[in-house]
Amino acid sequence: MKISIIGVGLIGGSMALKLREKGIASFIYGIDYNKQHINDALDLKIIDAEASLEEGIKNSDLIIIAIPVDAARKLLPTVLNLVSGHQTVMDAGSTKAGIVGAVTNHPKRSRFVAFHPMWGTENSGPKSAIAESFSGKAGVICNKEESADDALNIVEKVVNALDMHMIYMNAEDHDIHTAYISHISHITSYALANTVLEKEREEETIFQLASSGFSSTVRLAKSHPEMWVPIFKQNKENVLDVLNEHITQLRKFKSALEKENFEYLEELISNANKIRGILDK
Amino acid sequence: MKISIIGVGLIGGSMALKLREKGIASFIYGIDYNKQHINDALDLKIIDAEASLEEGIKNSDLIIIAIPVDAARKLLPTVLNLVSGHQTVMDAGSTKAGIVGAVTNHPKRSRFVAFHPMWGTENSGPKSAIAESFSGKAGVICNKEESADDALNIVEKVVNALDMHMIYMNAEDHDIHTAYISHISHITSYALANTVLEKEREEETIFQLASSGFSSTVRLAKSHPEMWVPIFKQNKENVLDVLNEHITQLRKFKSALEKENFEYLEELISNANKIRGILDK
Repeated sequence: MKISIIGVGLIGGSMALKLREKGIASFIYGIDYNKQHINDALDLKIIDAEASLEEGIKNSDLIIIAIPVDAARKLLPTVLNLVSGHQTVMDAGSTKAGIVGAVTNHPKRSRFVAFHPMWGTENSGPKSAIAESFSGKAGVICNKEESADDALNIVEKVVNALDMHMIYMNAEDHDIHTAYISHISHITSYALANTVLEKEREEETIFQLASSGFSSTVRLAKSHPEMWVPIFKQNKENVLDVLNEHITQLRKFKSALEKENFEYLEELISNANKIRGILDK
Repeated sequence: MKISIIGVGLIGGSMALKLREKGIASFIYGIDYNKQHINDALDLKIIDAEASLEEGIKNSDLIIIAIPVDAARKLLPTVLNLVSGHQTVMDAGSTKAGIVGAVTNHPKRSRFVAFHPMWGTENSGPKSAIAESFSGKAGVICNKEESADDALNIVEKVVNALDMHMIYMNAEDHDIHTAYISHISHITSYALANTVLEKEREEETIFQLASSGFSSTVRLAKSHPEMWVPIFKQNKENVLDVLNEHITQLRKFKSALEKENFEYLEELISNANKIRGILDK
């Protein structure tokens, strides 16, 4: 099948690599206003050719939108205007209610499948793309009843080819869950980086002392604002809700320390340890 | 050289494996009240024999204390009472002012070298020990002027054998820096786990959706309270100081979101991104 990837960055590039490897993609068009990304993607054989939006869509069976969520929401109606009844459009964004809401009444709504692969790294651009990235992670399809059966079948084939386990979810529920599972992790990581940068003025000391634990906790703080500001914007209410809870939880640690209530501190830590049983199932 | 390891857990076990591999250790005694750990360490050839505290110390050139920091501070004077002028004692704890302060006036203070390897994982026990763990990380020696030259030489030889880069630091400075670089990461990770466990009652959903980013940020939340409560206790003031700063930083994200000040949000994230330049030097 011929595929257009709109946004040949980390996610679009990784999908392209894997779909070609699995024989799903016979030809891949890359659509990106960033010429450097197009050139890198051509060099790395992530895409076969550059295309304009119109040209790419005209020649493709499947169109994958993999750009920041605000741009994706804006672009999707235009893409749907250009497709016919046998073409499929999917996205890969980290928020779903916004993009689904933008096309609820679009006459070609059923050609679109709302998708979110639960994988990413702190890096961006086609040079960071990895074919094996998605394996074993969750691939979430939202509001599947709003998509045509044949479009849904194609996206399910893609999700299987990416070696992801499929989950179906309502877009609103998806945005609540990802606020807890993904978006808040980025905020804590950003805030931790800012804390250390504020308190530890000697950069050399941070570099010298940085342990594996610190590097791991602060890894996500390297993620770009171009991608994350739109996510926080679109998922504002849910993110604020969980951020308030997180500050409450941190205050419990603060209070336990201030009052030297070490039994309470142990209780807080033991409770947090439960995450092991859930993640290491 | 003959070595006694007091506490054959993750750290003591990993040091034992590497020191044997490098030919530094000719015979290793394991001292631990946890019989399961002793048996596991014997099975895994981490130690050659179990010993009592007195017996192990009597027969060793180097005694490594690798137990939780409160227990280490309590035990160190006893260990120093038992050593002679040609034996060396080192610890491996994550706080340094407490243990150094506990023996300032001990007649055999100079036989002790205060040490902290900046490595650890969320796991514990000898079964989690890995020989290569310390490579490339910082090995911090504190208050070296309080140690005898020959004792210092032996510990420096150990740090080199662990393939760590050596840093010398005052114990008070060490505790300030580790509050920023290591201890706060654990608190944010614990609080994040508690946030998710509080808000996301459906454990199955956490497990299903957990992305690589979430797993990485929450990894440290699996660390045991037996090790971490004593660290927070001993480094209370520094940890509180950085925890307050961290809550302040999180409130900035909250305020930017609440006020929909997305330029400020972008500024906060761009500032956090600077951590990449420091960590990836």
